[in-house]
Order: sequence, then C-alpha cells, then structure tokens
Amino acid sequence: MSKQQAIEALEKALGKENVITKHEDLVTYSFDATPDLPNPLPDVVVTPTCTEDVVKVVNIAREHKMPIYPRGSGTNLSGGTIPLEGGIVLSTLKMNKILEIDADNLVAVVQPGVIIQDLNNAVAPHGLIYPPDPGTVSTATMGGSVSECSGGLRGLKYGVTKHYVMGLEVVLADGQVARFGGKTVKNVTAYDLVKLFTGAEGTLGIITEIIVRLIPAPEARASMLATFDKLEDAGNAIKGIIANKVIPATLEIMDQATIRTVENFAKVGLPTDARAILLIEVDGIPEVVEKEAEKVVNVVKENNGKIKKAKDDKEREDLWAARRAALPALAQLKPTTVLEDATVPRSKITEMLVAIEEIAQKYNLNIGTFGHAGDGNLHPTILTDARDKEEMERVHKAVDDIFKKALELGGTLSGEHGIGMAKARFLKWELGESGIDVLRKIKNALDPEGILNPGKMVSN
Amino acid sequence: MSKQQAIEALEKALGKENVITKHEDLVTYSFDATPDLPNPLPDVVVTPTCTEDVVKVVNIAREHKMPIYPRGSGTNLSGGTIPLEGGIVLSTLKMNKILEIDADNLVAVVQPGVIIQDLNNAVAPHGLIYPPDPGTVSTATMGGSVSECSGGLRGLKYGVTKHYVMGLEVVLADGQVARFGGKTVKNVTAYDLVKLFTGAEGTLGIITEIIVRLIPAPEARASMLATFDKLEDAGNAIKGIIANKVIPATLEIMDQATIRTVENFAKVGLPTDARAILLIEVDGIPEVVEKEAEKVVNVVKENNGKIKKAKDDKEREDLWAARRAALPALAQLKPTTVLEDATVPRSKITEMLVAIEEIAQKYNLNIGTFGHAGDGNLHPTILTDARDKEEMERVHKAVDDIFKKALELGGTLSGEHGIGMAKARFLKWELGESGIDVLRKIKNALDPEGILNPGKMVSN
Repeated sequence: MSKQQAIEALEKALGKENVITKHEDLVTYSFDATPDLPNPLPDVVVTPTCTEDVVKVVNIAREHKMPIYPRGSGTNLSGGTIPLEGGIVLSTLKMNKILEIDADNLVAVVQPGVIIQDLNNAVAPHGLIYPPDPGTVSTATMGGSVSECSGGLRGLKYGVTKHYVMGLEVVLADGQVARFGGKTVKNVTAYDLVKLFTGAEGTLGIITEIIVRLIPAPEARASMLATFDKLEDAGNAIKGIIANKVIPATLEIMDQATIRTVENFAKVGLPTDARAILLIEVDGIPEVVEKEAEKVVNVVKENNGKIKKAKDDKEREDLWAARRAALPALAQLKPTTVLEDATVPRSKITEMLVAIEEIAQKYNLNIGTFGHAGDGNLHPTILTDARDKEEMERVHKAVDDIFKKALELGGTLSGEHGIGMAKARFLKWELGESGIDVLRKIKNALDPEGILNPGKMVSN
Repeated sequence: MSKQQAIEALEKALGKENVITKHEDLVTYSFDATPDLPNPLPDVVVTPTCTEDVVKVVNIAREHKMPIYPRGSGTNLSGGTIPLEGGIVLSTLKMNKILEIDADNLVAVVQPGVIIQDLNNAVAPHGLIYPPDPGTVSTATMGGSVSECSGGLRGLKYGVTKHYVMGLEVVLADGQVARFGGKTVKNVTAYDLVKLFTGAEGTLGIITEIIVRLIPAPEARASMLATFDKLEDAGNAIKGIIANKVIPATLEIMDQATIRTVENFAKVGLPTDARAILLIEVDGIPEVVEKEAEKVVNVVKENNGKIKKAKDDKEREDLWAARRAALPALAQLKPTTVLEDATVPRSKITEMLVAIEEIAQKYNLNIGTFGHAGDGNLHPTILTDARDKEEMERVHKAVDDIFKKALELGGTLSGEHGIGMAKARFLKWELGESGIDVLRKIKNALDPEGILNPGKMVSN
C-alpha cells in the first residue's frame, strides 16, 4: 500500500484539517531543539484531538507499516522527536485541555498537549504548583516533558517530572488503550507501568492523558548569589549546605566562561572575576526560609565565598534572569551550541568541573559549564559550528570524554534530557550488555513491529 | 534430572551450610504473614552470601527447571513469598551488609538482607533517616520491602519505598547481572528500570544490591489525637488539613470497632465512645511544627472534633503505641485476620469508611478499619476463622465488594501490600485486559521460562 493511501486513510479518519502534508509545513517537524543531528522529513503530520483519534492513527500506521513519532512542542534536547525513518509525526498540540483540577487530592488531570506553564497558571489560584520546571516551561508540553522526563531548576528539593506523574492513559502499539495509576498517593498495584512509560520517549506507547501530583506553593523564598575564587571552595560549599541539612529548592552553578558570557550579554552585574558562582534559593514558610538562608550564608563564608542576598523581588528576578540567560548568552557566541547533560553524584561536582575544563583544553574547544549543582546535573555547553567538520570531530571526542568521566565518577548519561538519538550510542557504557538486553526485550515485547519512535533509545 | 541432583548441584555451588533440605526447616518457608492461602513446601531453601551465589542458583534452577522464590523475612501480606509450585526458596538473610553510608550524597548502599531498622540505626549518627516505615520495620528486609514496595505510616509526606530506591543490582532470569540507576538525584537514562524492578515482587529478577536515598531527620515533631462523633467530620478534617497546606508526616484513622478493641487490649486511654479518631503528627524544624500544629488544631475544632496534643515524649509514645496496637489488638479477637489494603483518593475516605461498614453488615462480619487516612490507604481488617468455611465464603465476598468499591471511587487494589497471590484475581478489574496484557508481555520478555516467583502478580 502506498504512502498516499495511508494519508487518505488518515484524512478520512481524522478529517483533512488534522492532516498536514505540505512540504513547507513538514519541514518544521523535521527537527527539534537538538543540534548536530539529521533532519529527515516526515511523510505526514497528524493532529489528533482525542484518544480515539490516536487509536485510529496507530491502527492506520500498523496497517501501512509506517512509524509514528509522538511530538509535543519539539523542545527536547536529545533528538527524541526527529522522524528518523519518515512516516507519521503525531502532534499532540490539539489535545490541550486541562481536564480536572482536584485540589482536595492535590492532583490535576491533563491532556498531553497542555503547556506546562498553562497548568501552573491554572492551579495557582488554588495555592498550588506543579514543581517540574524545565527551561522551556512556557513552550514545552506536558506530554513531551513526561515522555522525556524533564528536570529543571528545582530538581534538588522537588525532584523531576517522574516524581509527579501519578497516572497515565496510553495508546499501545497494538492500538489498545491502557490506563495505569490514578489519583491515590499510594499505588503499588502490579509493575510500576506509570514510571515505565514516563521517560520512555514515546517508544513504548503514546501518552493521551496524564494525572499529576501538585504541591502547596511555598509561602516565602530567599535568593542568594555566592561568589568564589576557587572551584574547590564552590564544591565544598555545595557539600556543606547539604551537610547542614538544608535542601535548597535551587542550587545552581556557573563557571567563569559562563559568567563572563552572561554578563557581557545581559549586564546584570555578575562578578566577572569570580572562578565560579552559586545561585541559591531556599523556600518554604517564612521561618524556615530565614533559618535556612542563615545557614547557607554561614556555609558560603566558611568556604571563602562572598554572598549577597536578594533584597527584593527585583533583585531576585535579576539573579534568575542571569541564570536563564546562560544558555542564550552562550548560544549567541557561535552558530552551534552542543548542550550536554552529564550528571554526577553531588560530592563529585568539583572533580567533574575540573575534568570538563581539562577536556576543553585537550580538544581546544570553547566550553561553558553551568547547571544544577545541587543535584550534580551539569550542562557543559560546547560552542562550535556544525559546518566546521574538523572542529565537530573534536566536539564529538570531547563529548565522549565527558560521558566517560561522568560514568567513571558514578554518574549517569542523562540527568534530565533523555537519551533519544543523541545519546543512544553511549547507553552501553552505562547499562552494559545485560542492561541493554533488558531495554530491548521490553521494547520488543511492547512494540514488536517497531512502529513507535524508531531509532530512539534502543532498537528492537 | 531429579530434584536430588539439583540439590546436590546447589550444595556444590554454595556449600552445604547454605542449603536447607530438612522437612521441619522447610515448613517455615511454606508460608508468610498472609492468611487464607495454601502453604506448599519448597524442595530446598538456599542462603546465598553474594551476587555470584545468586547467579549460580539461577543457573542451576534453569538447568533443572525449578522455580525460584526470593524471600527476605517473609513478613509480606500478599502471599508474595509462598513457594506455590515447589522448587527453590532463595533467602537473602545472609546478604545482610550495609555496604556504604554516603552522607555527602544522602545515600546508602545495602544488600537485600539488611533489616530496615538496622539501616535506620546505622544512618542515625549522621542525622539522617530512611523514611519508609512499614509496620514490620524491625524484622522486614530491605530486599523484601523494595520487592513489595512497602508503605507505612509516613507515606503521606514522605512517600513509599519506591520513592527512595535510586539504584539496583539484579540477577536476571537468564543469569545475567544488571545494574540500573545510581547515586545521582537525577537519572533519566533509558526506561526507568529501577522502578520496574521495585515492587515487581521478585517476578522479573532477584535484587542483590540496593542504593537508597536518605533524608535529614526532622528536628522536631508534634503528635495529636483528634476525636470525632461523626465519620463525616473526621473525613472533612482530613480534607481541611490538606486544604490548609499542611502535609502531616502521619495522619492515621481508627474506626470505633478498632478504637474499642485497641483500648481493651492496650489500655492507653483512647476515647471508646468516639466514632472515629485521627492520629496526626507534623514534623520539621520547630517553627514549622508549631505553626502546622496550630493549623491542625483549628481545622479539627472547625469540624466538631476534640483535640489533644501530646505534651511530652511519653504521651507521644502512648499515642503511637495505640496505633501500632491496632493490628495485634484486632488479631487477638479471632484466629484469622484478613487485613486488606484498599486505597482511595483522599477525598473519598469518608465514603469508603461508610461503604466498609455497610459491607460488614451485609455479610454479617466483624470488620475493624484503621489506616493511613492522609493518603487514602485504609486497612479494613476482617476478623474471622479460616476453619469456618461458611464464614470464609462471606469473607471472600466482602473482600470482593471492598475492592469493587475502592476502584469505583477511583482507588487502587493495593496501597502498600502488593498483589502477590492474594490479589492477582482482582488485577483485571483495575488494569483491564489491555493493562494485564502489558504486564504479561513484560513478564514473558524478562522471564520466558517462568522460573521467577511463579503464580504471583501475573503469569506468563
């Protein structure tokens, strides 16, 4: 059967208004936010409006042996949504209803196309928040962030997306609809399929409904900027804060290269002579915030740092604007920004930062590092130009070295960006043959024909 | 090959001191803490001392086509460790080393045979706790509680076991050793296999090492006893506490039947005329505890309850002794105690309590209900006698009705006890054919010969 027949079947099933085939439209679905990857065109893009539509798409895809790539806003950084083998891109953007806000049970039920920030805006009047906050919170969808298991700035205290997913409805590769989990805080019924499909990057099923946990919004917060002349002092301060039983909501680091670039770009008064800065925010009820902020100040001073507390909302905003500017500031220096996601146990942060600097020197590359120091999740960011083949070779070698080092320090390939296409080749280093074997068996069991997001994570 | 040959192979591989075959010894491995189930004898019990031993056992089991039943202390309440088809019980009790306490990273690494309380005792000098606290905390093993995903009294604020498991080493059904997760707070590398094997009840692999997350011990706490004349008021108080943004560490309920039995048994001064009591504990830094306790007092009063705050450690201990006495007190009334685990969204607690009372009347049974009201996890406890066949038929019907009602209210079959043998027949009600199908495919993919804990959860 031809692709044209498949497209006609999709148009008949979903209506022409939900099937995109124009070349210029398809181009926008050929890439996501990940650099340095191929950008093949899909044959068709569909925009289902309900679960039944998704079932129809899966059945047509199987009949015509066409792969399906579920896609939200395409902000992911692992090539998770690239239509590698052509076929059908399934955009969830029209399934964008917040179905329920259940404040009594501290949960919300949403369709996958809901934008994360829209959910937060909707629950705010109830005094609640949905804590996961990837950098793309104002554009990324719930479905995409659940599929990629996004992290963000608040991971240290509040965890990542998977800690908030309580229930899922998924359309399986055989077209069946299944529901796992629910609104109960405790649920140990059978295998934890909610967690299996969370972060599965659309390779095991297509998420069509999500139940998430909400938490009370913190009443108060304090933001601080700590400045260090030595990386080691910054690393010891991070350890010291935790050792003092303070778990900040946010504990971010920027190295000198990043500080200088950000300051040049955003002019927010960052100390450009500092070797490293930490941005720290504690939150909770006012009494806790005060007590914890005091502990943070002491720890920073004990470790030869200087510390400045934001006096008001304006100063707080400036601090976080500086942090948010890190990636765009670095990105404007060179055409291509390779943003990595290496993550190490918190106690190994200093070692990892030093190793990244050495790798930058070894391959003569421009690497700025920032990231979520409190949870060991660093973003070494290589500034390069994808057109410069010779330099890209060095970039690839540097990336290899970065991951080898992270794993050597007891870390992991991905703290929050996922595996997708970009890191699939490194998986064996972390999981070994036996681990890959488990992944492959699960993939093969749930998607034997390989129609769900082929070429990502692990092949069957 | 005969069973005798398998036993000889096990003795050769593990040493005779690690192989148990005497009939009187085998009897103790034929049951666990679950009533009303068959108690078949295993052919042999092995006590491996290391991962390599476990690999040897798995390989011998496969060669001789004998099933393996991993077992810790056998305290589970779902028949998870019963050697249903004979074969090899694999006791983890000799793999009982705490391998590492890493206070910098707030993690501990343990073998599966470590007793939960022993881990807590070991981390206490670091000012840390391992929060999951099933009732059997002083006898249950880490391996067993991870496999069953135990809950406990602190689930509302601190979650259940799966929220603390960061990494696992498992021996797979084919004898391969795999490691997933690690010491990093964030890890989104590949499918969440840590969570898949947590709560898998030993049906997918045998856990041989566990990395768990620790948290700072709370500095202070306040315990309170609230008394209500109406179930509805108690239910509204629960809702009200959460609506006031207080998430207590513990929020327990006891119905009148339980209150009276406990008071008769333990003489701790419980109000035997009360329709329901709530036991509430808030914890954290002293300022938070004070503020939250005040809110709790107000909510209870607004909902027509009386409230008493424990003045000192003695009074606090008495309160929790009463709660801990609930099960033993109920259990001494009749020879058989069928303790269920139905869980509903928090907002449905009152409805569920009323429904349980109606079910007790309908089948003329003695049911006391207590449990973790804050997280909707109730333990309706049927007092009966397994030798009374006519009554047991009514018990089974009542259990059916309890689960039907819990699911009707958006709840789940198990909040913390797992599925095992006891609830396997109800799984379809919650997950449907499509959900069972996913479970079965995963089981079949990872244990195609069905040697790991057969007859539990789902068969392949």
